[in-house]
Amino acid sequence: MPKRVYFFGGGKAEGRADQKLLLGGKGAGLAEMTNIGLPVPPGFTVTIDSCADYWALGKRYPAGFEKEVLQNLKKLESTTGKKLGDANDPLLVSVRSGAARSMPGMMETILNLGLNDKSVEGLAVRTQNPRFAYDSYRRFIQMYSTTAMGLSKEPMEEMLHEMKHKRGVKNDTDLSAEDWKELCGEFKKFYQEKKGEPFPQDPIQQLWGAIAAVFNCWEAEKAVTYRRVEKITDLKGTAVNICTMVFGNKGDNSGTGVCFTRDPNSGENTFYGDCLINAQGEDVVAGIRTPMRLIELETKLPKAYKQLCDVRKILEKHYKDMQDLEFTIEDEKLYMLQCRTGKRSPQAAFRIAVEMVKEKLISKEEAVGRIGSAEIEGLFYPVIDHKIGKDVLKQRLIATGIDAVPGAAAGEVVFSAAKAEELAAKGTRVILVRKETSPEDVGGMHAAQGILTQTGGKTSHAAVVARGWGKCCIVGCEALSIDYSKGTLTTGGHTLKQGDFVTLNGTTGEVFLGELPLVKPELPESYQTLMSWADGIRRLKVRTNADTPYDSEKAVQMGAEGIGLCRTEHMFFDTEERRLAIQEMIVANTLEARKRALEKLLPFQREDFIGIFKAMDGKPVTIRLIDPPLHEFTPKDDAGVERLSKATGFPPDLIKSRCEQLHEANPMLGHRGCRLCITFPEILEMQVRAIIEAAVACQKKGIKALPEIMHPLVLDKRELKILETQTRKVADAIIAKAGVKLSYMVGTMIEIPRAALMAHEIAEVAEFFSFGTNDLTQMTMGLSRDDAGRFLPEYVDEKKAAIFKADPFQSLDTSGVGQLVKLGIERGRGTRNKLKIGICGEHGGEAKSVKFCHAVGMDYVSCSPYRVPIARLAAAQAVVEEKQAAKAKPAKKAPKAKKAAKKKK
Amino acid sequence: MPKRVYFFGGGKAEGRADQKLLLGGKGAGLAEMTNIGLPVPPGFTVTIDSCADYWALGKRYPAGFEKEVLQNLKKLESTTGKKLGDANDPLLVSVRSGAARSMPGMMETILNLGLNDKSVEGLAVRTQNPRFAYDSYRRFIQMYSTTAMGLSKEPMEEMLHEMKHKRGVKNDTDLSAEDWKELCGEFKKFYQEKKGEPFPQDPIQQLWGAIAAVFNCWEAEKAVTYRRVEKITDLKGTAVNICTMVFGNKGDNSGTGVCFTRDPNSGENTFYGDCLINAQGEDVVAGIRTPMRLIELETKLPKAYKQLCDVRKILEKHYKDMQDLEFTIEDEKLYMLQCRTGKRSPQAAFRIAVEMVKEKLISKEEAVGRIGSAEIEGLFYPVIDHKIGKDVLKQRLIATGIDAVPGAAAGEVVFSAAKAEELAAKGTRVILVRKETSPEDVGGMHAAQGILTQTGGKTSHAAVVARGWGKCCIVGCEALSIDYSKGTLTTGGHTLKQGDFVTLNGTTGEVFLGELPLVKPELPESYQTLMSWADGIRRLKVRTNADTPYDSEKAVQMGAEGIGLCRTEHMFFDTEERRLAIQEMIVANTLEARKRALEKLLPFQREDFIGIFKAMDGKPVTIRLIDPPLHEFTPKDDAGVERLSKATGFPPDLIKSRCEQLHEANPMLGHRGCRLCITFPEILEMQVRAIIEAAVACQKKGIKALPEIMHPLVLDKRELKILETQTRKVADAIIAKAGVKLSYMVGTMIEIPRAALMAHEIAEVAEFFSFGTNDLTQMTMGLSRDDAGRFLPEYVDEKKAAIFKADPFQSLDTSGVGQLVKLGIERGRGTRNKLKIGICGEHGGEAKSVKFCHAVGMDYVSCSPYRVPIARLAAAQAVVEEKQAAKAKPAKKAPKAKKAAKKKK
Repeated sequence: MPKRVYFFGGGKAEGRADQKLLLGGKGAGLAEMTNIGLPVPPGFTVTIDSCADYWALGKRYPAGFEKEVLQNLKKLESTTGKKLGDANDPLLVSVRSGAARSMPGMMETILNLGLNDKSVEGLAVRTQNPRFAYDSYRRFIQMYSTTAMGLSKEPMEEMLHEMKHKRGVKNDTDLSAEDWKELCGEFKKFYQEKKGEPFPQDPIQQLWGAIAAVFNCWEAEKAVTYRRVEKITDLKGTAVNICTMVFGNKGDNSGTGVCFTRDPNSGENTFYGDCLINAQGEDVVAGIRTPMRLIELETKLPKAYKQLCDVRKILEKHYKDMQDLEFTIEDEKLYMLQCRTGKRSPQAAFRIAVEMVKEKLISKEEAVGRIGSAEIEGLFYPVIDHKIGKDVLKQRLIATGIDAVPGAAAGEVVFSAAKAEELAAKGTRVILVRKETSPEDVGGMHAAQGILTQTGGKTSHAAVVARGWGKCCIVGCEALSIDYSKGTLTTGGHTLKQGDFVTLNGTTGEVFLGELPLVKPELPESYQTLMSWADGIRRLKVRTNADTPYDSEKAVQMGAEGIGLCRTEHMFFDTEERRLAIQEMIVANTLEARKRALEKLLPFQREDFIGIFKAMDGKPVTIRLIDPPLHEFTPKDDAGVERLSKATGFPPDLIKSRCEQLHEANPMLGHRGCRLCITFPEILEMQVRAIIEAAVACQKKGIKALPEIMHPLVLDKRELKILETQTRKVADAIIAKAGVKLSYMVGTMIEIPRAALMAHEIAEVAEFFSFGTNDLTQMTMGLSRDDAGRFLPEYVDEKKAAIFKADPFQSLDTSGVGQLVKLGIERGRGTRNKLKIGICGEHGGEAKSVKFCHAVGMDYVSCSPYRVPIARLAAAQAVVEEKQAAKAKPAKKAPKAKKAAKKKK
Repeated sequence: MPKRVYFFGGGKAEGRADQKLLLGGKGAGLAEMTNIGLPVPPGFTVTIDSCADYWALGKRYPAGFEKEVLQNLKKLESTTGKKLGDANDPLLVSVRSGAARSMPGMMETILNLGLNDKSVEGLAVRTQNPRFAYDSYRRFIQMYSTTAMGLSKEPMEEMLHEMKHKRGVKNDTDLSAEDWKELCGEFKKFYQEKKGEPFPQDPIQQLWGAIAAVFNCWEAEKAVTYRRVEKITDLKGTAVNICTMVFGNKGDNSGTGVCFTRDPNSGENTFYGDCLINAQGEDVVAGIRTPMRLIELETKLPKAYKQLCDVRKILEKHYKDMQDLEFTIEDEKLYMLQCRTGKRSPQAAFRIAVEMVKEKLISKEEAVGRIGSAEIEGLFYPVIDHKIGKDVLKQRLIATGIDAVPGAAAGEVVFSAAKAEELAAKGTRVILVRKETSPEDVGGMHAAQGILTQTGGKTSHAAVVARGWGKCCIVGCEALSIDYSKGTLTTGGHTLKQGDFVTLNGTTGEVFLGELPLVKPELPESYQTLMSWADGIRRLKVRTNADTPYDSEKAVQMGAEGIGLCRTEHMFFDTEERRLAIQEMIVANTLEARKRALEKLLPFQREDFIGIFKAMDGKPVTIRLIDPPLHEFTPKDDAGVERLSKATGFPPDLIKSRCEQLHEANPMLGHRGCRLCITFPEILEMQVRAIIEAAVACQKKGIKALPEIMHPLVLDKRELKILETQTRKVADAIIAKAGVKLSYMVGTMIEIPRAALMAHEIAEVAEFFSFGTNDLTQMTMGLSRDDAGRFLPEYVDEKKAAIFKADPFQSLDTSGVGQLVKLGIERGRGTRNKLKIGICGEHGGEAKSVKFCHAVGMDYVSCSPYRVPIARLAAAQAVVEEKQAAKAKPAKKAPKAKKAAKKKK
């Protein structure tokens, strides 16, 4: 039979800090604080497993459970020398929930348990404070009735209000002992009316009622919702902490507070918190009275403040992290009620981590391990001013979509890219609202403050492009109904037209009516320090996905060590002139006409590449040749057809019929990628020419260029061989003619399952592999990222199908798609052991996926510029975690053991 | 240095019958006939490798080659006792090409080489037949000038014509020696004019010219085209056969002929052929004179005929197959000039194979091994009457598409399924012409004689559905321009409208103008015999893909042992009533409305399943739950919307907007397959209910039902677990309530790459796997079968990219996709060793793929009814070939050795 109750008190606890999964965060903290000699009121913790068993048994206590609880109660009574329900000097306890992780506001607390009509009198005599005793009793009745017995809160709050009104007073503290006593009577009467039985007087009955209440609230709707929203799937239940009551509301020598061992906003190493004199813990949180700053305690209760400062030091030294504390002072004596790692702002996270290293509390590795992706994102993206209250936000919320790119943006609604460009040029801040975006919209997307689309997922066109710029973007906002012809956007009863303001929160996917104030974060000094440590630790290189000189520069600032993916097709949309040239190439119906159009594109691409090589200054640049199906480039409306007709002389009918011909049933699996260059070798020729001529021009000016020419969507060695031969033919001729030294590489994307399976053959030709895990995920899982919005959320939803733990387009499906990645690497390196291998899918900027890339031995990851720091950090964390795992299993080699385990599965 | 020339003559040859790859078919045949004592004029064969080397060396002879040829010429001269070019009794030779496989009409022949102005006189004296001598000389000059030296044929033909006109005669035979001599002079003069040098008189120079001519014609345009069309990629070049001339044109004791050792049309065991008295071989083929039947030779030249009959017996016994022979009789003496395995009609192939077993010439295994897929298809599908001349066909040809389903069909052009149904009901034969077909068109497709579409490939909707019925179908006919609104079809200058006739040849993909006469083949008795032998040999079971009771019955007749794939969604299109019900289900926007619509569908499905179970009578029936995305079912035009609105009461706008909502960017990877049942469990419930209720009803009537319920598009164990649980819940409740005994299985398609990778987990839930290799190919190779027509032909084309040997949608890509199939089987069986495994993609009816399925250990293949015999035969051939391979490598176990070899790769 498992041990179900863990006692703490008298300077010793049965539990430990590392037993959070068994005792909950609060229980483990209380045990640990007891063990290190801090003043914790004695008590005991009922394990999380007991709660899980209770639910598994259909809301019954497991065998032996009740006996064990009562034994521990006995022990508590003997430790405190008091008895629960004693008429003279009763032991009072608090009953609190506590899961393994903090779930704020989710669980209720019951205080002062053990009071009844008799013991309240004993407490009054013993404390010589009847007012305090009856105030405590009425609080208990209130909490027990609502939390344990499910009565609604309002009636009793109303009675209290009525009493104050009757007495003509304003504050609770102005009520007398008699008032409280009278209120206790009213509350009990109300309880009897509602429940059909008197308020329980037996303290043991009260205790069981409270324990059951805590267990039950684990499956209460709001708890379930919270876990769903927060994607908490690994918790089994909550612990119950039964703790001797101490009273901050015993008078002016008493008080209570909540504090952090450092400033959680700035990270500064100062003691930070709020406290109240003559109050119980809940009063601070409830905000009924305005608390005073912690520092004021130094003058008000200097003895207790000193104790608290000592505790602060001990705890930081012990836990080696900033702590969030709850304390109560009873008659100038300090009691610690809770201790947990404190939440902090992104800025504070960096500062605390770095300063703790300088204070020699933690190692650089530990510091690097403490920063998460969200904290990095929090440093770079603007947010809605925190001063805006939750009520305002709630009231302004008009729709929620998929949080594609974090940060916030506000501006006027526009419905076309052209309008966005036009207004932005005049200095207007706009939000571009589209059903979906296409490459044609890129100009307008760039001009907008933020982007909002009705369809698409996190790897849709809008999301990928916006991410590259770190621009706030919400996609898949299905609640929107957009009517381009009327120029309106309807959602939840609101109809917006151009000029109306909205604010987007890309971090949450929320769309708000009106223009909310935004705050742009500042980069703390500690950021650079910590990132340099990460860079020193990691093995993986971090490159960026960038398509323009501007993005490339930005990425270098973010720490990129090269370009892992330069998408050449984005260049075709930069200006009307370029757009028309690519469209002309597409509608051309003879080789000659196509070549003429390509000749127009050549100088544009060459100039862009020169800019990129300059920006990267000797760092490698992987350039992917044209990838999307041609119909993505064609004009989408009559005006576009008209413009193209005018520019090219092709009749509109011909253009339309050519565009129609290009329509595909499944473009993702259609005529795209290197297949275009197999059928139209002249496209390859133009692009290779532009790359190599640019590189040659740079080399001549003394700027080192390292082009890596990449063929997308390859599925067979013979296919790549054709492309490689042609690539080298064009490139070598230019280099030879220019008479400069220039080395370049030719490689391939691995993004079709067959390419991974045939990697041993493909590596005979390819000098490098870049895993395109977006497409690889689509094909390996049979999921179209553009359409998966209809069912994938259900697949990921823990309360629905729960088939996947995370969206596989965000976090790599390591068990399925990951097999092909591993296989591709093993087979590729089997043929060419120095094969350079990277990833350029969206996963390259997601921490968990980056760690996988490290584990399978890639050389680099590549991601959008704003995700580069996330990747740098995750790459470092991968090394740290690998070391930890190796330490944990010193007998075996870690990677081998991992392999074996997987095979066994 | 390799031996480059192989001598034959004097009863002994250096080559053998099994050296076709070195000596060509003709050379190997001549050598073999010499060795077994048949009368072959002596000569020698220049190897194919010499031709390949000649091309590799840039049209130069390899070292030592010339010397070896001249040595063999010497040997020939000493064997025959004559000398090339001798003025008195010259040795004359023929020079013929001969590749490893027959390439009819591809290569030219030069006869009578060795004649010049002097030796022709010697020949005239020696034969006492100047007319013969000069006729021979003029033939040589003609052939050498055109074949070896590239002059055009017409001018000399014209001179001959002119000569006959001048002499007032009709036939060549009416010309005198003097006439021929005069003509020789004219020809030589013409040669000198054109070539600027006299006609070569040196016989050795003539010989080299002829050898070079044969080598050169290997890369001539028509040879290259032929190899491309016939998909011949494994031949390296042609051999050259230099053979002593014998003369069938020496007088009435001489003659020549072509014959088969059995009747190539019926397969009857009679001597069959044509011959001509006093003629040379080419005269028979050229058709200038009408040949007589072989049997007439018995009276005309009885001695020679008897020799020929002896040869026939010896050769059939020696080669154990029907032979195609060329012979010449010179002065009543028989000479054999060629011997090769004879081509035969499908009917003859079966009869010859079966009768040779009865004659104990070959074993049953050998008989089974001799029949190909094309021969089986030739037994079942109508063809265009062979009496229609090639010229007519050429003239009538208006377009060529992809040969989706073999056979021929003729009828009036119609452009809509509705019209097809309407006209067919009146007894009109129609050809349904569509840009593409959708499930809505199924009724019209069934009513039509044949189907012609502008887009799509061999696994497009039209192809798959038509194949199920064995109905002639041509797809991807890109040359067509169809205008539905005008009701016209334009191609190559012809504009057809409804009522115009076309004839389709689905075997070749050709579309002809007008109604050509068709011939329906009859099934020979030997078919059943041979197929029963195949059934006795094979290990693989053969099932069918069938969706209706009618198809199921048909398939059982074709030998199906169960249904491997019953597509439930096809049932939804059978009648307007069903169509409206499924559409109602789709547009329903509440669960209740959806359930109401499903209730309407239930009885239809149940009835169909009852019919199918009856037809299969105890054989297993694998039923796939709904698979296509819902938008495939929605009305495609306003009339359809109107009808649906009328039937359901939903306003047209709502229907349209719902249909629009269902639009997907990549439906193949979208909301389809089991994903529909995850989001709409009520669909699963209805379908399982229909299946199980039907099975229960059958069991009650004493008809054994063996349903295997199959979930499509599964990608994860958890997903299948949800579906399996629900399936069993619904099924078990019905079975329990009915109180009958009924066992059923629950399994899954393996058609997403991830499913194959996770097969070890999925097999924990699935009782059977069915590989859906259509989708698996699409996803593993990143190829949309609907769009691949734009580039895949180029990928398969030997003269273009040559990336794949065959269209991977027709013949399984064993090296890539096959890896996932193998892996899926190994992992699946690793978890559940009795896991039942089959294939239900189109590959299940393609011989090479069936053999792969055998090799990787599947339990069965499933294919459309008309392909069942192909699969039965291929499955038997797989066993035979496996045995042969095992015999060939007796030391090692064949399968293991294969594995090791693959790994090494």
